[in-house]
Amino acid sequence: MIYDITDDDLRLRVARFLRSKGLKRIQKSAFIGPLTSSERTNLVAGLKRLVRGYDKVNIQVYPLTEASYNRRVVIGVQLDYEEDDELIT
Amino acid sequence: MIYDITDDDLRLRVARFLRSKGLKRIQKSAFIGPLTSSERTNLVAGLKRLVRGYDKVNIQVYPLTEASYNRRVVIGVQLDYEEDDELIT
Repeated sequence: MIYDITDDDLRLRVARFLRSKGLKRIQKSAFIGPLTSSERTNLVAGLKRLVRGYDKVNIQVYPLTEASYNRRVVIGVQLDYEEDDELIT
Repeated sequence: MIYDITDDDLRLRVARFLRSKGLKRIQKSAFIGPLTSSERTNLVAGLKRLVRGYDKVNIQVYPLTEASYNRRVVIGVQLDYEEDDELIT
């Protein structure tokens, strides 16, 4: 799942929510995790609740098959991210 | 495909390269497009050339099935992006 969230506090809360659901951060604005279909449904419901009342929010959730995941290509280096949603450079 | 690219000029060049290959921006750091397997291979090769010599680059390319794409969930509003890689708020 990927997000564009302008509000700093909301973005941090969304990131923490995603981690609490077992997803891990793979980029500054991208998380991934092995969810069942019903877990994904719950995740989406929780995200909708979290962002209610905010504009300038765009969150996209893409279900990936295991085959798709295994065929991913990663270019460059692994970047590290602090808990507080900041890129460590 | 999603990216974290610290260098402003490189990020802009990567975005333009992706557009030139028929991908469209779906978030600030995410593009999508209907590529064949060989087009995806060429895209990855081109990206590797572009980012050569840069550190603090992470690009991830995930092949999506049509079924996965059709099951995506989008929360929030459509945000607009300028050609110059800046979020219009």
